[in-house]
Amino acid sequence: MTAQIIDGTAIGAKVQEEVRQAVAEMKEKYNYTPGLATVLVGEDPASATYVGMKQRTCEKLGIRSIGHKLEADATQEEVEGLVRKLNADPNVNGILVQLPLPKHLNEEAVLNAIDLEKDVDGFHPVNIGRLAMKGRNPLFVPCTPAGCMRLLEESGVDPNGKEAVIVGRSNIVGLPMAMLLQKANATVTICHSRTKDLAEHTRQADILVAAIGWAELIKGDMIKPGATVIDVGTNQKEDATKKRGYRLVGDVDFEAAKEVAGQITPVPGGVGPMTIAMLMHNTMRAAQIALSKK
Amino acid sequence: MTAQIIDGTAIGAKVQEEVRQAVAEMKEKYNYTPGLATVLVGEDPASATYVGMKQRTCEKLGIRSIGHKLEADATQEEVEGLVRKLNADPNVNGILVQLPLPKHLNEEAVLNAIDLEKDVDGFHPVNIGRLAMKGRNPLFVPCTPAGCMRLLEESGVDPNGKEAVIVGRSNIVGLPMAMLLQKANATVTICHSRTKDLAEHTRQADILVAAIGWAELIKGDMIKPGATVIDVGTNQKEDATKKRGYRLVGDVDFEAAKEVAGQITPVPGGVGPMTIAMLMHNTMRAAQIALSKK
Repeated sequence: MTAQIIDGTAIGAKVQEEVRQAVAEMKEKYNYTPGLATVLVGEDPASATYVGMKQRTCEKLGIRSIGHKLEADATQEEVEGLVRKLNADPNVNGILVQLPLPKHLNEEAVLNAIDLEKDVDGFHPVNIGRLAMKGRNPLFVPCTPAGCMRLLEESGVDPNGKEAVIVGRSNIVGLPMAMLLQKANATVTICHSRTKDLAEHTRQADILVAAIGWAELIKGDMIKPGATVIDVGTNQKEDATKKRGYRLVGDVDFEAAKEVAGQITPVPGGVGPMTIAMLMHNTMRAAQIALSKK
Repeated sequence: MTAQIIDGTAIGAKVQEEVRQAVAEMKEKYNYTPGLATVLVGEDPASATYVGMKQRTCEKLGIRSIGHKLEADATQEEVEGLVRKLNADPNVNGILVQLPLPKHLNEEAVLNAIDLEKDVDGFHPVNIGRLAMKGRNPLFVPCTPAGCMRLLEESGVDPNGKEAVIVGRSNIVGLPMAMLLQKANATVTICHSRTKDLAEHTRQADILVAAIGWAELIKGDMIKPGATVIDVGTNQKEDATKKRGYRLVGDVDFEAAKEVAGQITPVPGGVGPMTIAMLMHNTMRAAQIALSKK
């Protein structure tokens, strides 16, 4: 049996199209254009690439994109000052501070400074706190886990009563994903580098989320037959046949896994396209919140 | 084999004695007395009893206790106004709003109004958010789960690399306990009413925390031999031999469990005494924070 491939490229495009239509309607009905401010500190090329992609996607969907750049040696006060200026700017609905920040900056304090209603990345401690509590809901869900939930939904997988196993416990994927699946009534287990027998856990999973950043850690025999496998990893694996000398692989051994799983996301083309799509979704939501207060 | 009994009464008394000594030292060295303000809204007899116990324990340890009472029909603005007044009062180090609040009040908004540095119950969304994130630490850990962690520590149980299973996902015990054990490098599974095969999970647990409020749900054959069992439940069970017609039992069938477990908390006399002890501990910590800013 070969697993059904969960097509993140197609589902991401569907989310983007929803946003594009909502933006167009908002412009027509209310003469209001959503705006996303990006804050890039320093010269990290990967961060610059991500910010560029986000800005281009905004433009494609009709969202105003406002790019801010600070030097690598910007002070805490300069970064927080910029955030406060953006908080006060009525043309800015969402504020995205590209992480990681240079080491000398206090990341938590910067994220804390973002107006809760403009926290489109969902990393404000209050948004995370609400995510972690029963009966409360964050204004914004962090983009990558929100994208994973959307992939499940679009694939007809209801977590209610299912066994869900998360491999990895990062603040941006593993931990919020655990909270989301728990809120959706899955029985959730969080595995990590200290877990003694990883395979014993992963083999119980109806829904397996791999987000530990370890190339092809999850082998075919670690997967329950018929399981839904969401692979958040993006790792470089040496490959002499490629011009750049490597290819991208996930945290799951895809070729083996697809013979066991019921549904599986590929890398690339699985979770990746969802992150940016959900950022656009969150920005649209921030614009709706702002508009509702006018 | 019979399990070692984890004596919460003795460990709670030890924590209280630590606090009493720290309070005495603070008075002597800095002429400063820690203060806890309690806020009781309405006439719920159980809530009144809890608040009374907290106040008496404060007095016993040398902590100033400041009781506030509002009518059952107090408005949101009245409750939040009182909280703000207490935030501004330099004689108040900790603010404890007794939960549950009457239904017409917005509990989250009230908790949100408490100054983060006076949030001795640890229920402020920012404290919960920090608890839920790697690399961040709340100023205050919610008292019952903090007490459970202390019981483990005093019993020589290091969660690192252990299998921990939590039964129950309340905001005040189950969910924060999951986060604490996860931070301590356990592999954590959160079970709840929608979990399909509870026994299959509980039998894997090196550390089993029962906090679902279901009398004697956890039977002896659901426990891994040698496991550490923390029973947070306090349920009334009919018992004609008792004057009041019932006796208190936990979420664990104690008599059966103690023949299987390695260590186990009794009910009463296990987790119960820890909650109030950790509240005193948190109040002392709040006083230390305030003093350090003088």
